[in-house]
Amino acid sequence: MFRPQIKVLDCTVRDGGLINNWQFNDDFVRKVFLALSHAGVDYMEIGYKSSEQYFSRDVCGAWKFCAEDDLKRIIGDTETKMKLSAMADIGRIDTQDIQQKKDSVLDMIRVACYVKDVDKGIRLAHECIDKGYEATINLMAVSKVLERDLDEALDDLSKSRVETVYIVDSFGAMYSEQIHFLAKKYRDALTGKELGIHAHNNQQLAFANTIEGIIAGANRIDATLYGMGRGAGNCPLELLLSFLKNPKFDIKPIFEVIQDIFIPLKAEVGWGYHIPYMITGVLNEHPRSGMKAMAEATLPNLRKFYEDLLDDTPLG
Amino acid sequence: MFRPQIKVLDCTVRDGGLINNWQFNDDFVRKVFLALSHAGVDYMEIGYKSSEQYFSRDVCGAWKFCAEDDLKRIIGDTETKMKLSAMADIGRIDTQDIQQKKDSVLDMIRVACYVKDVDKGIRLAHECIDKGYEATINLMAVSKVLERDLDEALDDLSKSRVETVYIVDSFGAMYSEQIHFLAKKYRDALTGKELGIHAHNNQQLAFANTIEGIIAGANRIDATLYGMGRGAGNCPLELLLSFLKNPKFDIKPIFEVIQDIFIPLKAEVGWGYHIPYMITGVLNEHPRSGMKAMAEATLPNLRKFYEDLLDDTPLG
Repeated sequence: MFRPQIKVLDCTVRDGGLINNWQFNDDFVRKVFLALSHAGVDYMEIGYKSSEQYFSRDVCGAWKFCAEDDLKRIIGDTETKMKLSAMADIGRIDTQDIQQKKDSVLDMIRVACYVKDVDKGIRLAHECIDKGYEATINLMAVSKVLERDLDEALDDLSKSRVETVYIVDSFGAMYSEQIHFLAKKYRDALTGKELGIHAHNNQQLAFANTIEGIIAGANRIDATLYGMGRGAGNCPLELLLSFLKNPKFDIKPIFEVIQDIFIPLKAEVGWGYHIPYMITGVLNEHPRSGMKAMAEATLPNLRKFYEDLLDDTPLG
Repeated sequence: MFRPQIKVLDCTVRDGGLINNWQFNDDFVRKVFLALSHAGVDYMEIGYKSSEQYFSRDVCGAWKFCAEDDLKRIIGDTETKMKLSAMADIGRIDTQDIQQKKDSVLDMIRVACYVKDVDKGIRLAHECIDKGYEATINLMAVSKVLERDLDEALDDLSKSRVETVYIVDSFGAMYSEQIHFLAKKYRDALTGKELGIHAHNNQQLAFANTIEGIIAGANRIDATLYGMGRGAGNCPLELLLSFLKNPKFDIKPIFEVIQDIFIPLKAEVGWGYHIPYMITGVLNEHPRSGMKAMAEATLPNLRKFYEDLLDDTPLG
């Protein structure tokens, strides 16, 4: 019934932190850590690995930086099989700020990059591998890229030492047909590598597209608690674990932390399905205009929001 | 890009009325009617066709009965290409209360029945056909039925004059693999008939499963405005119309009625994704226990709710 190769990564703190500049207190992060660990989740992505010269601790919480001291405050001497991950953005982390793996509680660094930056992404991932980490490449925003350029990036990745590459539906724009098309393309190009999937919920398809990714061969799967994430949010972890059926997972600690923390937090912060996010997803646009619309005191005119984004002025 | 055979039915008033005993005022129903008509939706299901001896007008609003006078108050002399539908439940409507089509503004009657009642369902559908209506059978709760019994029901339906049969995921329990399995089974058994799909959103899969139904050949598609429906709700019409790409549809009136009516109504009534509904979906159970849990002043302990429903007491 289940595929033992599938590994689940929860990125609640990393992706959810995009909502509040990672201003989570230690108690929140520790409760998430313990719930995921007890549930048998394979990886917890606890934030971004960034250099402090690019962001201020006055603006961003600890999980934008994931310094060793930040991490150790959470982990303490807790015994867990769960691995820890941080995401790194090209140009936001200097190599000297990534310790050797032997000096870090992190196990994996996931490099997020656009297709145009794939060479920089591979270089950073190789540096992480050379320091002893697992490393992945998460190719963002591929729904807006010319297929020729994507093919070239996949060819570069096929020659790299990066073992896992993710399909990322950054705009929540994809249907199952796009997921199957890309999964076949990635698998054909990346023989011997693992395929991952990271979906967004603009069209209520994050969980569904994750299932299709799994059917199409993805074994590295992203989700977040109660779907928490910027804008429409992500694939909900509770749905994913129920679907996977692997007996190593225990969903009950997930229900507990959702009830204690995430139901009240969602009522306060309000990620999830809303028409402005649906419209940016349908139009394959960055969610920023949707987030701006949702942040206003009164919802703007949705018909006009759609027409403005559609913007069918001839381009010549 | 689009399949012209696909016909969309909006069942907001019929399915949404399960939340509030169809206590919608005429202004609400008329605004829904006009928005759907302007959007180019093929069918509006405006309620249930029931006999007044089984339900009281003191308890249930007009859309539980769909008497001709009720319907005419809404339609007036509005010109529209949109057809009108009502649903009929076995044993809740007496044949004499269904007028001849020539005396009704209704175009279609959809008979909802369980597999065990398929013979009664076919008889009622034939009576509707003989009176001049289009008629369909919506086979409910098939996720809990023995395959042998489903096959026998499909064999009966194949010999009937009913032209459209729906896959109904009553409990929101199905994944894409179940949709494809059932769609193939229904198509193989029901040569020459149209296939429909009606999905529920307990696992955030109503829209996704509707897409898979379409890929697998379904041409009669159910949705509701902003996903309104009992419990977790239904496939959102706005997502469906965006996906279908048929130029006859205009989504802008849909955004307007969602903004004016359905966003405030959802904030008040609260259909949609909630953990109790997710749990009944995952466990393939009727949503009634989830609705009971959601109706309580404080959410019950979700872990205990799950464990009680799971109820793995040996049955012997």
